[in-house]
Amino acid sequence: MKVYQDEFEIKTSKRTELIDITNKVEDAVKKSKIKNGVCNVFVPHATAAVILNENESGLVNDIVDKIEKEFPAGVGYRHNRIDDNADSHLASSFIGQSKVIPLKDNRLLRGTWQQIFVLELDGPRSSRKAIVTIIGE
Amino acid sequence: MKVYQDEFEIKTSKRTELIDITNKVEDAVKKSKIKNGVCNVFVPHATAAVILNENESGLVNDIVDKIEKEFPAGVGYRHNRIDDNADSHLASSFIGQSKVIPLKDNRLLRGTWQQIFVLELDGPRSSRKAIVTIIGE
Amino acid sequence: MKVYQDEFEIKTSKRTELIDITNKVEDAVKKSKIKNGVCNVFVPHATAAVILNENESGLVNDIVDKIEKEFPAGVGYRHNRIDDNADSHLASSFIGQSKVIPLKDNRLLRGTWQQIFVLELDGPRSSRKAIVTIIGE
Repeated sequence: MKVYQDEFEIKTSKRTELIDITNKVEDAVKKSKIKNGVCNVFVPHATAAVILNENESGLVNDIVDKIEKEFPAGVGYRHNRIDDNADSHLASSFIGQSKVIPLKDNRLLRGTWQQIFVLELDGPRSSRKAIVTIIGE
Repeated sequence: MKVYQDEFEIKTSKRTELIDITNKVEDAVKKSKIKNGVCNVFVPHATAAVILNENESGLVNDIVDKIEKEFPAGVGYRHNRIDDNADSHLASSFIGQSKVIPLKDNRLLRGTWQQIFVLELDGPRSSRKAIVTIIGE
Repeated sequence: MKVYQDEFEIKTSKRTELIDITNKVEDAVKKSKIKNGVCNVFVPHATAAVILNENESGLVNDIVDKIEKEFPAGVGYRHNRIDDNADSHLASSFIGQSKVIPLKDNRLLRGTWQQIFVLELDGPRSSRKAIVTIIGE
């Protein structure tokens, strides 16, 4: 049994944006040489999230629209007395900053339409981070 | 420390449906012989999810109603120019396809009212899958 | 590789409430002496959840308000024919009862604004529980 950890920086360019990190996570899996176990993808941020879904441009825009509709900016949040991003914190809290994907034969057991995305909720930011932790044998 | 993995197929019969897989997950836990650790339940699908909740028929219907209300079908999604299930992808992204439950003395530490469900969001489908990965000692 | 598990009780005083358990989780991490791996925070309840976010009083109130707005009590839920907390079950199912945080050098790799909260959704309760499981080396 072993643990392998990798971390990489992400630059975002919009307030709400999906960044596909599937290749980077799969590189970490290969480097880990761990065959069977689980892979945790985590963002150490309170205004970002991690989701798994299809990387189809229409759908990516639908996700952005849905977030902006469900978590509208500037509608009298108390947090905005000291900052201006309560909507981002709310979306991050509800959607979650962490996902776990199983691993078999050194391959993520994700489905065909499950790409791994970091979801920026308060961009643009120059130094978002994703942390990949793989545990197994 | 060891890893045990099991996978099983699920058949669904409605567009939005909850399938209780608690017994199957608990069978995997027993077979694993792992005493202490964690159990990851994952669906390799972008239009399904995993939730933990009470298997009471009224509540199960309330969950289906809430999903259909919060993620309505066919309201001008861009993804629907090439498919017809943007609502299913959105619900799957937000609710999540992966849950982690702790394990002690070869028993899931789930609460009395926490049954494990696969949540079908774009059924009916003949071959949904759930992947159970248990890591521990 | 080893597993360390700790469990503690939480008392809540309102129907919807956030309880910051960061110190307790970090105590468990220290006691575990595990350097690198992952930490799972889980509540064995179907009407509570776990979230990571900033412990700023305005934001904490915004989160409570958002939950009460998105999951209103008593609007004709079927579960309420036998109980009165369908809204709590719905919020718990959607937000999730389990989070996973990576660990490095015996320290949680959480962000500056990511405190760990148990989210009470059907309080007050005298004996909520949180279960912390740490796996690594």
